[in-house]
Amino acid sequence: MSDAVSRFPVTELEDLPDDLRTRIGAIAEKSGFTPNIFRALGHRLAELRAFLDYHDALMEREGGLSKAERELVVVATSGANHCTYCVVAHGAILRIRAKDPELSDRVAANPWQVELDERGRAIVDLALALAHEPALFGEGDLDAAREAGLTEDEIWDVGAITALFAMSNRLAHLTALRPNSEFYLMGRQKR
Amino acid sequence: MSDAVSRFPVTELEDLPDDLRTRIGAIAEKSGFTPNIFRALGHRLAELRAFLDYHDALMEREGGLSKAERELVVVATSGANHCTYCVVAHGAILRIRAKDPELSDRVAANPWQVELDERGRAIVDLALALAHEPALFGEGDLDAAREAGLTEDEIWDVGAITALFAMSNRLAHLTALRPNSEFYLMGRQKR
Amino acid sequence: MSDAVSRFPVTELEDLPDDLRTRIGAIAEKSGFTPNIFRALGHRLAELRAFLDYHDALMEREGGLSKAERELVVVATSGANHCTYCVVAHGAILRIRAKDPELSDRVAANPWQVELDERGRAIVDLALALAHEPALFGEGDLDAAREAGLTEDEIWDVGAITALFAMSNRLAHLTALRPNSEFYLMGRQKR
Amino acid sequence: MSDAVSRFPVTELEDLPDDLRTRIGAIAEKSGFTPNIFRALGHRLAELRAFLDYHDALMEREGGLSKAERELVVVATSGANHCTYCVVAHGAILRIRAKDPELSDRVAANPWQVELDERGRAIVDLALALAHEPALFGEGDLDAAREAGLTEDEIWDVGAITALFAMSNRLAHLTALRPNSEFYLMGRQKR
Amino acid sequence: MSDAVSRFPVTELEDLPDDLRTRIGAIAEKSGFTPNIFRALGHRLAELRAFLDYHDALMEREGGLSKAERELVVVATSGANHCTYCVVAHGAILRIRAKDPELSDRVAANPWQVELDERGRAIVDLALALAHEPALFGEGDLDAAREAGLTEDEIWDVGAITALFAMSNRLAHLTALRPNSEFYLMGRQKR
Amino acid sequence: MSDAVSRFPVTELEDLPDDLRTRIGAIAEKSGFTPNIFRALGHRLAELRAFLDYHDALMEREGGLSKAERELVVVATSGANHCTYCVVAHGAILRIRAKDPELSDRVAANPWQVELDERGRAIVDLALALAHEPALFGEGDLDAAREAGLTEDEIWDVGAITALFAMSNRLAHLTALRPNSEFYLMGRQKR
Repeated sequence: MSDAVSRFPVTELEDLPDDLRTRIGAIAEKSGFTPNIFRALGHRLAELRAFLDYHDALMEREGGLSKAERELVVVATSGANHCTYCVVAHGAILRIRAKDPELSDRVAANPWQVELDERGRAIVDLALALAHEPALFGEGDLDAAREAGLTEDEIWDVGAITALFAMSNRLAHLTALRPNSEFYLMGRQKR
Repeated sequence: MSDAVSRFPVTELEDLPDDLRTRIGAIAEKSGFTPNIFRALGHRLAELRAFLDYHDALMEREGGLSKAERELVVVATSGANHCTYCVVAHGAILRIRAKDPELSDRVAANPWQVELDERGRAIVDLALALAHEPALFGEGDLDAAREAGLTEDEIWDVGAITALFAMSNRLAHLTALRPNSEFYLMGRQKR
Repeated sequence: MSDAVSRFPVTELEDLPDDLRTRIGAIAEKSGFTPNIFRALGHRLAELRAFLDYHDALMEREGGLSKAERELVVVATSGANHCTYCVVAHGAILRIRAKDPELSDRVAANPWQVELDERGRAIVDLALALAHEPALFGEGDLDAAREAGLTEDEIWDVGAITALFAMSNRLAHLTALRPNSEFYLMGRQKR
Repeated sequence: MSDAVSRFPVTELEDLPDDLRTRIGAIAEKSGFTPNIFRALGHRLAELRAFLDYHDALMEREGGLSKAERELVVVATSGANHCTYCVVAHGAILRIRAKDPELSDRVAANPWQVELDERGRAIVDLALALAHEPALFGEGDLDAAREAGLTEDEIWDVGAITALFAMSNRLAHLTALRPNSEFYLMGRQKR
Repeated sequence: MSDAVSRFPVTELEDLPDDLRTRIGAIAEKSGFTPNIFRALGHRLAELRAFLDYHDALMEREGGLSKAERELVVVATSGANHCTYCVVAHGAILRIRAKDPELSDRVAANPWQVELDERGRAIVDLALALAHEPALFGEGDLDAAREAGLTEDEIWDVGAITALFAMSNRLAHLTALRPNSEFYLMGRQKR
Repeated sequence: MSDAVSRFPVTELEDLPDDLRTRIGAIAEKSGFTPNIFRALGHRLAELRAFLDYHDALMEREGGLSKAERELVVVATSGANHCTYCVVAHGAILRIRAKDPELSDRVAANPWQVELDERGRAIVDLALALAHEPALFGEGDLDAAREAGLTEDEIWDVGAITALFAMSNRLAHLTALRPNSEFYLMGRQKR
């Protein structure tokens, strides 16, 4: 079995232009390694910049969903989409953000039935409806989210993060993107 | 029946900050109207900027697929995803780019069986495989594209455009985005 | 790309026996062209006669659904079935019957979520339930139609038209039936 | 549990107009009972006449498929569509036509894997492709049928019978049509 | 067409070790023949013993569901799973247990819509939910069963029998298991 | 959120009859804890005994598939079935048996595309075909396995383990079975 990171050319941090080297370098320093998604997108600089911008606009935004809730959306929809990279990488982040070493595996294995509180359930149900059968997404899905107390702004966050990872998942499927080994162990110890 | 453009707040061109007003204003001037997708994303400025950047990085890129072929990917996957806005809006653009008043309706109605030349068929097959059942996307899909003569760079284009519109389609489903009336008639007369 | 009308032999109007030439000739005169479905069925005279009879029994019947509503059933189920010929041909008729140049494209692209008034929604929901997963069709579907005010007679019309086009769609898929070019532009101008 | 024949009004043989009473009377005499499909369609005379004409045009036609093969198409597609009336009624006819008391139950339970000779398998595969996912039906399906020796005329028969029973199945689902008790036992004894 | 009982080696009653020969011999004596499932599992003695034990633990257990209700679960889920052997063999047993010569064919053809009393409907709905889309099985399914009056113990029976036949069905699909001819006629005469 | 192990009564090791206490006690001693599946089945003693027997007959059998390969079948099909308990518990065992801390997460997230050697791929493909669409399982699936070098005996093992976990997965879905916390960390460190 190969250890290839991607089916397409891979770019190392030091070969990126200054702006991207600085930006991704900061992530790599914080994580201790360069997440493979950046190495796999590095041969397309404009796409990599737009990807980072879109990601930060939704995942680092002030207000709205908590950071753990945003990762919950990512892990639930990536589990439903069977996206290995996103399940492993964002599963690690969710473990850390939610301070729960078991949650990610349970969400990824079965997002439809994983036990969550009412708000968490409403977030995941909304995300799954849009991720899985977008043609059927309708007012009923929004009404259920509103009844669980989500604001319009939070509903947008759930929907837009789901949409962003519909894209990310497909980029990972396109490239057969390999998760960095470090992700598997992150956040597994209860702290 | 309502004529609402979106389920969420809509922003008019003149209420956007300078950079976006200039950028989208140029599109509006060329089209003769402001496509509703920009009005629907205008309440989230960072997301709108990233969306435009990602779109241009893939749809305006030099080399690789022709512009008509890029729109073919969009219309085929949006048809498979039952995304009304993208079918109508990009159907109009495809009619113009391909100089064919019938192609868009046929691609959108049934992308799996629409008659195309070998290269067109390979592009659409690759796009549909990634759009519809990404978990099953694999080497066989890539090999079929290569056998039809697509380069690695063109394969990336098809895959990345498919991924981008997996996101765009879901944003349109989230917002129940209404196509501008102008799109329906564009490019319908043979020239 | 070929311009073939059908995968099977095609019969011209003048080569049909008298009764069919008169009957289809009247349609051709009114439309300005002979719809390709008749040319494609013309090599099987008994089937063509029965097809015309069944079509007229349901689509020209006095009382019950309006003519626009009947076409709504056709376009919605043909869209769900990805039947290019029926989407294009009956989309044209629906535009004319409903005096709405946008409705057909929106119904065909996404019949599940297209915005309709309550009665229209009930008609389309009933049709889609029977078209798409007939094994699950049950009392709940009928009750929903009744609650929206449909009579038993109207419910039959919706169901029987859906059934007829489950057949027509498959005949069009069997033959790879090409829509006449004239259909694409019919009814696109607001009058 | 009710013994209702249909969810809609039922018409008895003696209440039909002369032409239909004669025509269906002949069937009833031969079978020993009036098949419920005729009683259920009897409140719509024009539809019943067209139904009988279409049925006879395909099922009684000279040449092409054998009568047992035509019933094989009906039972296979009705099994895939979970249509109880057609499985039970045409299962009885297939037992008689094929002189095989086990074939119908095996075809109806699993048409995809039932053991058949090469020609039978090709007929059923073609029928299932068109019945189940018509949007994907294409040249490959026709080529497989041709390779197994089916003529263009026989391919049309398979396709058109599949299409007719896509309609019939949905009429039976619409009406919750109850099979006559007589069908269950017909042809069950080896002769 | 072959008359093979299984794709794998078949073991005759007289070639089984004493305990199994006695146990299955008793079944064979009662039925008048050795059901093929035992001949097909006979080359794996430990598996055959465990299969018999599991079957008896659920199907012969005192209390809870009636014996006809247990067979109803088997026929409904085997129909949904398109398992020919289980549909034919357990269809025969259900006819006998329910003293109804028509019920099995109707349940197997369309378990979702077959007319049943409220308790029967609740049993079949619960079984189908677990059989068909287990990942979505949840509290709502249990609540519906409880509302129809099923006890916790009966709910377990329905669920565990469904699970057992998810296994049995797949063993029959693995082996292309042929139903014994005797099953087809058992219980078909009203008594 | 509750910490319930099962929706149904749970039985502790010390409350089991002697034979089961000894048998499961040995597992508990080896693992360091009592896997929850045994606590959840403990209220049905005959079923628990048959479950253990069936499990051991297939998972502890001499010859045929390696122990790691058997767990590969379990994790792949449980991933496809979205069964949280089996993914987490057998994922732990697979990590240990395969001496690979990453394999389980990758198999469970996407069994269809996880990179495996040719034999591993053939095993997983065979298992997924039977697990996911058993009605379509046929000679082609067996031929592919044979071409990859699997013996008839190994093919049976793959099929029968897949069948057993079609049952186990549904028991876990029925009970909403909670994985023991210990499983999440087992085998995660490379040794």
